Amino acid sequence: MDRKLLLNCDMGESFGLWNMGLDEQVMPLVDMANIACGFHASDPVTMTRTVLLAKHAGTRIGAHPSYPDLVGFGRRSMQCHPQEVVSMIQYQLGALDGIARAHDVKVSYIKPHGALYNDMMQDHDMLRAVLEGVTRYDRSLPLMLMATADNTVVSSIAEEFGALLMFEAFADRAYDERGFLVPRSVVGSVYHDEARIVEQSLRLAREGVVETLDGTTVALAADTLCVHGDNAESVQAVQHIRAALDQLYSGTDA
Amino acid sequence: MDRKLLLNCDMGESFGLWNMGLDEQVMPLVDMANIACGFHASDPVTMTRTVLLAKHAGTRIGAHPSYPDLVGFGRRSMQCHPQEVVSMIQYQLGALDGIARAHDVKVSYIKPHGALYNDMMQDHDMLRAVLEGVTRYDRSLPLMLMATADNTVVSSIAEEFGALLMFEAFADRAYDERGFLVPRSVVGSVYHDEARIVEQSLRLAREGVVETLDGTTVALAADTLCVHGDNAESVQAVQHIRAALDQLYSGTDA
Amino acid sequence: MDRKLLLNCDMGESFGLWNMGLDEQVMPLVDMANIACGFHASDPVTMTRTVLLAKHAGTRIGAHPSYPDLVGFGRRSMQCHPQEVVSMIQYQLGALDGIARAHDVKVSYIKPHGALYNDMMQDHDMLRAVLEGVTRYDRSLPLMLMATADNTVVSSIAEEFGALLMFEAFADRAYDERGFLVPRSVVGSVYHDEARIVEQSLRLAREGVVETLDGTTVALAADTLCVHGDNAESVQAVQHIRAALDQLYSGTDA
Amino acid sequence: MDRKLLLNCDMGESFGLWNMGLDEQVMPLVDMANIACGFHASDPVTMTRTVLLAKHAGTRIGAHPSYPDLVGFGRRSMQCHPQEVVSMIQYQLGALDGIARAHDVKVSYIKPHGALYNDMMQDHDMLRAVLEGVTRYDRSLPLMLMATADNTVVSSIAEEFGALLMFEAFADRAYDERGFLVPRSVVGSVYHDEARIVEQSLRLAREGVVETLDGTTVALAADTLCVHGDNAESVQAVQHIRAALDQLYSGTDA
Repeated sequence: MDRKLLLNCDMGESFGLWNMGLDEQVMPLVDMANIACGFHASDPVTMTRTVLLAKHAGTRIGAHPSYPDLVGFGRRSMQCHPQEVVSMIQYQLGALDGIARAHDVKVSYIKPHGALYNDMMQDHDMLRAVLEGVTRYDRSLPLMLMATADNTVVSSIAEEFGALLMFEAFADRAYDERGFLVPRSVVGSVYHDEARIVEQSLRLAREGVVETLDGTTVALAADTLCVHGDNAESVQAVQHIRAALDQLYSGTDA
Repeated sequence: MDRKLLLNCDMGESFGLWNMGLDEQVMPLVDMANIACGFHASDPVTMTRTVLLAKHAGTRIGAHPSYPDLVGFGRRSMQCHPQEVVSMIQYQLGALDGIARAHDVKVSYIKPHGALYNDMMQDHDMLRAVLEGVTRYDRSLPLMLMATADNTVVSSIAEEFGALLMFEAFADRAYDERGFLVPRSVVGSVYHDEARIVEQSLRLAREGVVETLDGTTVALAADTLCVHGDNAESVQAVQHIRAALDQLYSGTDA
Repeated sequence: MDRKLLLNCDMGESFGLWNMGLDEQVMPLVDMANIACGFHASDPVTMTRTVLLAKHAGTRIGAHPSYPDLVGFGRRSMQCHPQEVVSMIQYQLGALDGIARAHDVKVSYIKPHGALYNDMMQDHDMLRAVLEGVTRYDRSLPLMLMATADNTVVSSIAEEFGALLMFEAFADRAYDERGFLVPRSVVGSVYHDEARIVEQSLRLAREGVVETLDGTTVALAADTLCVHGDNAESVQAVQHIRAALDQLYSGTDA
Repeated sequence: MDRKLLLNCDMGESFGLWNMGLDEQVMPLVDMANIACGFHASDPVTMTRTVLLAKHAGTRIGAHPSYPDLVGFGRRSMQCHPQEVVSMIQYQLGALDGIARAHDVKVSYIKPHGALYNDMMQDHDMLRAVLEGVTRYDRSLPLMLMATADNTVVSSIAEEFGALLMFEAFADRAYDERGFLVPRSVVGSVYHDEARIVEQSLRLAREGVVETLDGTTVALAADTLCVHGDNAESVQAVQHIRAALDQLYSGTDA
């Protein structure tokens, strides 16, 4: 095991007076905080608060840019021209970097949010727009996207741009044999049983595989695991994943 | 004459499909482009276009941040807490820097827009918030504000933050004996006569003074002159100011 | 006692995915729901949900319009021209009426929100703008504003427009001898003790007076009492006020 | 010829300080003004100005609702749930009605804008959402949509809701043999020759047909013709169409 599986979590998704997420509780438990940049959630004050929270916890921060859609929380696909996506990526990356820099923190990666993330995974023009946005801004910032059984296509597109990639897997979602997520509409596609969630996390960390819905296994070369801090239940799951991974990496697992 | 009077102009104030300003015509005529950052005008695509326009013209760019008020074009004062202003300054500075950086351009100063500019000139807490925002982001970026006959108060506040200042004067506005602008509500406070506008520009450049509405003169230590590119008439005035200043600085004026 | 003291509460202040307020719990307890119209909070779907909630509870609805400021929740004063206020009042009134009408519900009053409410109470031009907005829309809709010891000035301004007024008092705020709220910055100005809150409500209902911070009493001719449903504690206070008023009006109070 | 072909035009598409469209010039030339409701363009003050312009010209007004997308001018399809569309239609209808009502004007039809219009024409769920939105608001308001050679499907869907329809044709667009618009990407699909535009308008008014790109004709049962007032050239085309129709209907055409 040469590399540790890192935990990433969407954070800073409050907006003005509206709160979302138990950021204070989750921040110390994860390695990477995906911070909303004002297009689907957040505002300059919330971003400042979230950057400081990450700084104090020693958590790495990444930009979590989105389509411009506060009322839809960035979850609705919008027919944007790729050139618009390039510019909106750079705007949001810069905005977070501006606030981070003022507090001696550095944005160290990027993970698109919601519908932009989905569109990027399904449409190579969108992926190229995101990659152009990131690499022209700072080629050293890796783009986080979804690990599947075969990452060769996205990897070769990233190479066109000299871009770095990070691959993420999900602890609480069922996978199919190609390493894709089973759609939420399918019964059993989202795990609520904490033991199962911790087990999927541990197998990914230890063996680099997940068990599919059909009971077979599929290899996923994941750098990081996406966890959630929406409510007390999900925070508790993160605590248990964190503890299991810490035990694993401290060598006391066996 | 050790330092040339630079021309600055608000630009990039289109929004989506709505156009404002003759940026293509004015950009080559001015030294500094104050670029809107999405809060009172502009959007990521417009910002990209404006940054490229400045790059091709060799015009220096500055951030032109505002209160968040698109429908009011940033002209309505909003009771924001100073800490909100600190964060919104850094957000907008960073956003413009993000787009500029992607095109190998560097933001080199900041000039607040509209009501934020006015509030900063009248309220020392707001000035301090702007200065904190800028200096924590990048202490080497000067803040542009209004030259008056006596700049000692704002200068000493800037010193608290180790901040650099640039002072601007206006070519088309009447001044009072303290070097303040005569309010727009006063008859004769805005000059429309181009000869008068060019003359005021030249006296500022040559002698560092403006004639007041009362016919006396007041000294203004201005680094830069604010000009406008809203319509054909104002662009023509800028052309004439540019020509007059070029002639002055080429030494062929006498 | 010829008229019952009605309870009013701000509701429908969620926005997109962000929740605010325990509307489901408070709605059946109050007589009047002040429904946000999309400028400081809410969106068309949230407004629909809130209107239906009110309909099922048999609660009267009113428009709760605001300055356009989602990120500041309408709490920041904005220097709007009175004519802008007239139009924004009519836009928001109409928008809520549009949704209400589609569900066979009628908007029956208007209460401005936050900074717009405060500005209307302090600036007669703003009050006139609100009154012009309402009366040109529908003269039969009363405007709710703050009861003080002497309502003659606002009443005479309302008469200019042929407008109806409703006066509201606050159960959890300390009053001064003129019947104005003691500013929140003063220690003891906001009551947290539920017994005290219920007592102030009952005296208002029974005697039409409140005890001031100094221990004297001041008469307040209030039609309605503003209550809050932000959290479990405030909902419980509303339950107790409701019960006390119900007992009073059922004649079993003595 | 029992019914006159009416001219409709999108109007009130300015936003804050940004102007769009030569509304003052076009308003007296057309029969129906499709007024933006603040989601893709416009604001309460602009809506008021536009309603008054229509009132003075005696032009009928209709609501021109959109997806919520100012920066994209409502031209980008957004994956909205049908129930969101129902609510956003009612919100925007009501908002315009609120402003109209304050000036004794009545909204008399609805025509969705941009991407919402296109989605409604292509997706029956969206059409049903729009129809539900309109008919629950006011069953007497006709929905304007695109005339094609065969309107039976949309007509039968409208009947489910007891909805009235109006069909519009385009003066400056090429049609195919099914009465659909030839996509803008096809060369020759948009007419710029004014004589051709006026001719297409006249044939629609006189014979109820348009000539297709292939030179055949297709019957279009159009109630109204969509014209544009974006610039001096298009306004002049509208003047000529107006004059031609007036001549036709005055019986002096032959």
